[in-house]
Amino acid sequence: MLVYGKNVLKDVEPKKIRRVYLSENFHDKEIMHYLSENHIHYFFRPKNQLDKMVDRNHQGIVIDMDSYEYASFEDILEEDFIVALDHLEDVHNFGAIIRTCEAAGIKSILVPKDRSVRVNDIVMKTSVGAIDRVKIVLVNNLCEALRKLQKENYFVYAAFMDGEDYQRIDYANKKVLVIGNEGKGISNVVEAITDVRVGIPMQGKVNSLNASVAAGILIFQMNR
Amino acid sequence: MLVYGKNVLKDVEPKKIRRVYLSENFHDKEIMHYLSENHIHYFFRPKNQLDKMVDRNHQGIVIDMDSYEYASFEDILEEDFIVALDHLEDVHNFGAIIRTCEAAGIKSILVPKDRSVRVNDIVMKTSVGAIDRVKIVLVNNLCEALRKLQKENYFVYAAFMDGEDYQRIDYANKKVLVIGNEGKGISNVVEAITDVRVGIPMQGKVNSLNASVAAGILIFQMNR
Repeated sequence: MLVYGKNVLKDVEPKKIRRVYLSENFHDKEIMHYLSENHIHYFFRPKNQLDKMVDRNHQGIVIDMDSYEYASFEDILEEDFIVALDHLEDVHNFGAIIRTCEAAGIKSILVPKDRSVRVNDIVMKTSVGAIDRVKIVLVNNLCEALRKLQKENYFVYAAFMDGEDYQRIDYANKKVLVIGNEGKGISNVVEAITDVRVGIPMQGKVNSLNASVAAGILIFQMNR
Repeated sequence: MLVYGKNVLKDVEPKKIRRVYLSENFHDKEIMHYLSENHIHYFFRPKNQLDKMVDRNHQGIVIDMDSYEYASFEDILEEDFIVALDHLEDVHNFGAIIRTCEAAGIKSILVPKDRSVRVNDIVMKTSVGAIDRVKIVLVNNLCEALRKLQKENYFVYAAFMDGEDYQRIDYANKKVLVIGNEGKGISNVVEAITDVRVGIPMQGKVNSLNASVAAGILIFQMNR
């Protein structure tokens, strides 16, 4: 898998890096030092070769690293606070939510296999390295996974426009926060098994927040 | 100015719309009804003509509307809570912050003229209509504008990674929240005149939130 950019280099575990391509005019001493210090193989290439590898602003550095390895469902059962994404579609939102989870100390994110974001290079880049410190689990059926968690005494909180005021809820110790799709919100099947519908009271008329902003507000409150 | 998409159509004030272009196979009854009901002129065009107007997924609808009109600095002096963006660069972040402000009932956003986001079609689209309910003021010099606000008894709070815990601050009634650039954060000149450095305590190691997520968390807390 190819990722790119100076910040990403430092946030990827060195042992996951296969090799690094630098553009011929690359001369960032700090980065060069980091590469040799961590015994990372690197090669200089003409800038247009790097442009062909990734069609974005790579800052002269492209990193070939191991593809993302999803965690297994069993790995996350020791966590107290899990975030689940109910068919989120936007990779920038996914990256931002991964970053928020990492910052809040949340270690597990559940994502359904179909009709949903997957970890790709934009997600990697947007998460600025946070992805290496969060476990992401692909599940065949989100509803089934949530029901399993309920059997393990997790409470399922799902974000709704008209849910209960998020600041007035006494949250359970073991909890899952479900964030819905950008356009459609939480799906009917997930709503049917939700324990508490959580909402952020709004004063405006447009009445919707970006999915990653709403997730951030809820996560930091539920995590107090 | 060209904007596009079905949701955007309904969120733009009808009187600001000059004309609407629909792709030849467009047949959304609800939209057609909305157009005639609001006396909006529309024209059918081949899909590839629309593709040339905007290089994104326009859903068969492109709207030609009045360019955005920025508000004047004097317009915002009656507001109690103002958000200022210290050379934010990402248009998606800008759109998400506009949306958050609208949802939180904040009516004014200060943006410096140079090296900063401006209102364009992506911002319009990302803000999903919130932009029509928030005043955006372009200022020549952000620092000078903040100093003027301080003279009007506003307190200037600026977001820093290592700022004071945002949940433990007793916020003034008249306040400005400054959100920094995605990479560089708050500029030195703005830091020099900041009254309170505000921070979101984090548990992770990456230790940074997406700018619009951080703005959302701070805005909803400061607005309680």
